[in-house]
Amino acid sequence: MNVTPSFDLESWSLQSLAEIEACLDKWIPPLAPANLNEPMRYAVLGGGKRLRSLLVMGAFEAGLHKMSAEEWEWRREAALRAATAIELIHAYSLVHDDMPCMDNDILRRGKPTVHVQFGEALALLTGDTLQALAFEVLTPEHSHITPYLQAKLCGLIARAAGYNGMAGGQAVDLASVGQNLDELHLSQMHKLKTGALLEASVLAGAMCAGVKDSDLEQLKVFGSALGLAFQVVDDILDVTADSSVLGKTAGKDAEADKPTYVSLMGIEGAKHKADVLVMKANQALLASDLSKTDALVAIALRVVNRNY
Amino acid sequence: MNVTPSFDLESWSLQSLAEIEACLDKWIPPLAPANLNEPMRYAVLGGGKRLRSLLVMGAFEAGLHKMSAEEWEWRREAALRAATAIELIHAYSLVHDDMPCMDNDILRRGKPTVHVQFGEALALLTGDTLQALAFEVLTPEHSHITPYLQAKLCGLIARAAGYNGMAGGQAVDLASVGQNLDELHLSQMHKLKTGALLEASVLAGAMCAGVKDSDLEQLKVFGSALGLAFQVVDDILDVTADSSVLGKTAGKDAEADKPTYVSLMGIEGAKHKADVLVMKANQALLASDLSKTDALVAIALRVVNRNY
Repeated sequence: MNVTPSFDLESWSLQSLAEIEACLDKWIPPLAPANLNEPMRYAVLGGGKRLRSLLVMGAFEAGLHKMSAEEWEWRREAALRAATAIELIHAYSLVHDDMPCMDNDILRRGKPTVHVQFGEALALLTGDTLQALAFEVLTPEHSHITPYLQAKLCGLIARAAGYNGMAGGQAVDLASVGQNLDELHLSQMHKLKTGALLEASVLAGAMCAGVKDSDLEQLKVFGSALGLAFQVVDDILDVTADSSVLGKTAGKDAEADKPTYVSLMGIEGAKHKADVLVMKANQALLASDLSKTDALVAIALRVVNRNY
Repeated sequence: MNVTPSFDLESWSLQSLAEIEACLDKWIPPLAPANLNEPMRYAVLGGGKRLRSLLVMGAFEAGLHKMSAEEWEWRREAALRAATAIELIHAYSLVHDDMPCMDNDILRRGKPTVHVQFGEALALLTGDTLQALAFEVLTPEHSHITPYLQAKLCGLIARAAGYNGMAGGQAVDLASVGQNLDELHLSQMHKLKTGALLEASVLAGAMCAGVKDSDLEQLKVFGSALGLAFQVVDDILDVTADSSVLGKTAGKDAEADKPTYVSLMGIEGAKHKADVLVMKANQALLASDLSKTDALVAIALRVVNRNY
């Protein structure tokens, strides 16, 4: 793997995250009805790894080319809006997934889940509102972001969130409880459930930078492999990590009789699988014409080596 | 009120609805996971008045001006996509509103509600997916619809669905149970809860036709007044109509101790209020430079005179 030795992921992440957290804070409207505003902020601003928005900003930097300061300005605003929108979609999915009719989870990022804290009705509405807000953030009424890019981002993110993406994957997941899935079907489920939004994060950042189609194709391979690696590691951590480290309830998958990479291939097999996927992700970057890929490579390495 | 005597709302509606139903049928993806596809179709294709899509098409016709056949083609496709997207948003909101943690309703359009028929988890996912699908439909990957119009429609509909629209109104509604709201606060709640999406329907149709800003302003007044009139009539019917005629459970509001126009001003007072609002709606049309407003006027009259 080829990260420039001088590249420091921690300080790059800290700087990017400071901006993203500020955008999330700014774009969650203080004007929402008070009983909705509080759970919206609770769901979104309560921490989290922000992997998706880091991927947006990493891909944006990888795709940057020579341009005027003015163009850079609106392209960067678009990337921050895309990162925010994707975090809003991710946050809504967590709120709804935690509800009693789904995973019935009471702990998220070390805090009571939204439905525990605010009741089920508001949890439902909070998720619904966060999804709508994502598309509001992508279509600012006064901005220099081109309508072309706004429409492209809306389409990309709607498709990643919908029936052929995250929500579709959830439905497959529901149907798979207690089933013996083989590796192909397990991968297909996760490509939708978590992979689609991670892949869209990479593509959104690159589209904001204006990269050419052939590089978008390679970034699609990168995002898809990374998304699957992320899920494999998630399955490993569900078995090996404490709830206190994860910030959510560990061991839920086995308890719910859900098929996982660990149940399918054991812990060592799953670790090998994650390594192979990250290798594939990095090969896609090498095959592209992108040069400033340090952040993306470093994020990919961190995905497999994380312990939370 | 000035409907051309020869204008026949029934045959106009039938023709428009045939197209809209075909679009809904076409754009609900057969490729969705099977367990999601069925409740999606059940939720959307199970009938309904389609008031919102008729408003889109009515406003589109009112706003049409001289243009090439080619321009008319993509503008009309945009209107059909906007009508479809708004029906998808409306359908998702009904699925979620009916859930046990919200209104806990078991009957909708004369059939078991989605959560009764498919379970709560799939009802939750179905609503989530329908909302995402709305934005997919608005941003086709191959189309002559300008990116400008695509982005405008996404923004308009996201805002009408979100915190400062439908979902926000639901949150205010939740907080208002058992409260003594005055008319101002009741109107504010309904302007969000049902008014915002009805108003957006009118504006979307007009934007697809390319009407000028001053006419959009008048159509906003029309849509807002009509939206409120619709809700006032809804409150009246909740008291006066049978469940079998409504296709949903009657008397729910009084039972749930929700404030309504009838509880606030009596049935006669509410009827008068609805008439005044429709008058206001029609005055806005007269104040515009739009000429082909027959369908919009006829729809407004039907809204106050309906018995279902």
